Amino acid sequence: MQNFDFHNPTRLILGKDTIPELGKYIAEYGNKKVLLLYGKGSIMRNGVYDQVVKSLKDNGIEYVEMSGVKPNPVLSKVVETVALMKKEKVDAIVAVGGGSVLDTSKISAASYYYDGNPWDFYERKVVPEKALPIYGVLTISATGSEMNSGGVITNEVEKKKWGWNSKVTFPRLSIVDPSVQKSLPVNQTVNGAVDTLSHVFEAYFGGTTDTLMQDELSEGIIRTTMECVKKLISDPNDYEARANLAWAATLALNGLNGLGRKGDWASHSIEHSVSAYYDIAHGEGLAIVFPAWMTYVHKYDVDKFARFGEKIFGIKEETKEESALKAIEAYKDFLREIGAPVSLKERNITEEKMEEMSKNALLRGPIGTLLQLDSNDVYEILKLAL
Amino acid sequence: MQNFDFHNPTRLILGKDTIPELGKYIAEYGNKKVLLLYGKGSIMRNGVYDQVVKSLKDNGIEYVEMSGVKPNPVLSKVVETVALMKKEKVDAIVAVGGGSVLDTSKISAASYYYDGNPWDFYERKVVPEKALPIYGVLTISATGSEMNSGGVITNEVEKKKWGWNSKVTFPRLSIVDPSVQKSLPVNQTVNGAVDTLSHVFEAYFGGTTDTLMQDELSEGIIRTTMECVKKLISDPNDYEARANLAWAATLALNGLNGLGRKGDWASHSIEHSVSAYYDIAHGEGLAIVFPAWMTYVHKYDVDKFARFGEKIFGIKEETKEESALKAIEAYKDFLREIGAPVSLKERNITEEKMEEMSKNALLRGPIGTLLQLDSNDVYEILKLAL
Repeated sequence: MQNFDFHNPTRLILGKDTIPELGKYIAEYGNKKVLLLYGKGSIMRNGVYDQVVKSLKDNGIEYVEMSGVKPNPVLSKVVETVALMKKEKVDAIVAVGGGSVLDTSKISAASYYYDGNPWDFYERKVVPEKALPIYGVLTISATGSEMNSGGVITNEVEKKKWGWNSKVTFPRLSIVDPSVQKSLPVNQTVNGAVDTLSHVFEAYFGGTTDTLMQDELSEGIIRTTMECVKKLISDPNDYEARANLAWAATLALNGLNGLGRKGDWASHSIEHSVSAYYDIAHGEGLAIVFPAWMTYVHKYDVDKFARFGEKIFGIKEETKEESALKAIEAYKDFLREIGAPVSLKERNITEEKMEEMSKNALLRGPIGTLLQLDSNDVYEILKLAL
Repeated sequence: MQNFDFHNPTRLILGKDTIPELGKYIAEYGNKKVLLLYGKGSIMRNGVYDQVVKSLKDNGIEYVEMSGVKPNPVLSKVVETVALMKKEKVDAIVAVGGGSVLDTSKISAASYYYDGNPWDFYERKVVPEKALPIYGVLTISATGSEMNSGGVITNEVEKKKWGWNSKVTFPRLSIVDPSVQKSLPVNQTVNGAVDTLSHVFEAYFGGTTDTLMQDELSEGIIRTTMECVKKLISDPNDYEARANLAWAATLALNGLNGLGRKGDWASHSIEHSVSAYYDIAHGEGLAIVFPAWMTYVHKYDVDKFARFGEKIFGIKEETKEESALKAIEAYKDFLREIGAPVSLKERNITEEKMEEMSKNALLRGPIGTLLQLDSNDVYEILKLAL
């Protein structure tokens, strides 16, 4: 187990009918004029927009709106958002939506106090010392962005889909009402679950040993996520499954799961490269890339992959190698069962840009800790994913 | 699953050789003169005192000392501590020790800004609005006090051993160096583990249903604690077991484990009553009281006790009732295996004050949620514990 330094100051409110309290909290914290940031019309249809706006009005909070944040959110939208925030002199951001909106809010909140290009943060040219407070209202559980300080933004011009975090961009408070997620299309619930599982895997399979408490936490999140997503496919209105899945998704990436371990984020980098070239959902990309990465690297920590098989699927073969391979197959079977793609061709992605994507995944430097990957390795992993 | 509101602002640093950084952190946060609060000589013998003092001096932090905080810390010591703090005008507390020192620091930090009797907080006559910052250096993992806002203090005059917490008494930062715990006597490591397990049980067995993610978290902490304490009995120098046990103890009571559930703290109240009359260690009292409470109430949530048996001990009998009873026996066997007492008579406690203790446990109002207990129930539980 490695030494760690954990600090997560976000206040998280999870439960039914919690959104109407938003304005009261904002008023208690002393904010008066907020940017209301969101994506498309889904928050109109599921009633979240109305709940948020009513709560702001009831508590005398002024707001200006910025909509149109897309899945795989882009830098140009950040620039537009920051310009509006500066013009309107807001004192906080209310981010209503999923990971894309939350992620956009973080770089925007930091950029409010910075006159250069927001992308400078992502290029690590500058570290923010302060940011506007962020209030999150989550409408889909997946990225964990509601309770962490990170965000993934795509620089469309430079074809860079990168992650970033900072000490000052934790949401001050996030509200998660799992009941609003009952109207999500099934594939979005599934993609969220795959994203959650991938976040757990990235710490779990990083090669650090002697992390029993952390392994137990990871395995608990994995089992909960798998069980709940299956329940939700048969009954999208199952509140208890929604609530447990939502909480599992938050726990997967609020910092806890990664403590004491190195982590291996290579799969996320590879997926980001794929979805910088093809417009596929992040969760789909992860469902495709992860089993291929597992197959390629399992020999470098066969004990852990065998443990994964035993604790998650009850697999116990004669050798650890056999257990590990069977565990990876079991994970693919699970993905198929919930309707997630497990190959690139299921999303019409061919070998055409594979070399380009392999290089792109390494733009920011080397990836992988269990096995450090060069572009040939990434190419081989993408080939396994074909 | 119940709605929840979670906010834990404590920064936790866990790992080897982390104590020498203490003064640097304090300086970064801007504090200049601290109260150095501790218990007896153990921090002299294990080198922690020297590490702390050197780190304070190296970073130009002034300090005044208050020692002599006892296990089962008492109100008179709090009064003495607060008087010194006010006289010396300190701007923070450095609490070095176990739960008793941390717990004393919290009521003291709040009392710094209050002119009445510190016990008023415990009687809920007044709620603190601010408190001095607390920096913790943990020397024994047990109570979780390093990462929560609560504390247990005994009012010796009124024979009340009560718990209390507030929004303003989370430590700002705590350092947990598991390696300093290698010199602990075995029984203290054991008592700490029993305390940790009890904290988990109190949320786990509260009767709230549909809390899968939380059940998984609880079971992970339980298995980790059991495995690590057994390893430490055979090898006190096993760093990885120390580190995982330490982290499990923190997770057991930093708020996470209790989320979404009602919890049932009756056993803690009963134990507090026992140890208000007899000077036994809190962990010993819990080892004695808990199995008796389980036996008395298991019928009110036989499913959960059966699940406990299956997930922790691999027990699967024909009926849930049989599984539940076998699980409680298995827990007692585990306690015996690690050398913890499982009956009052092992600590020379007889029926003599049982009636008095039964009433004392209810002084603060009704206890128990799975089953609300009156003093007759408590009496019966103590009888089962004889």
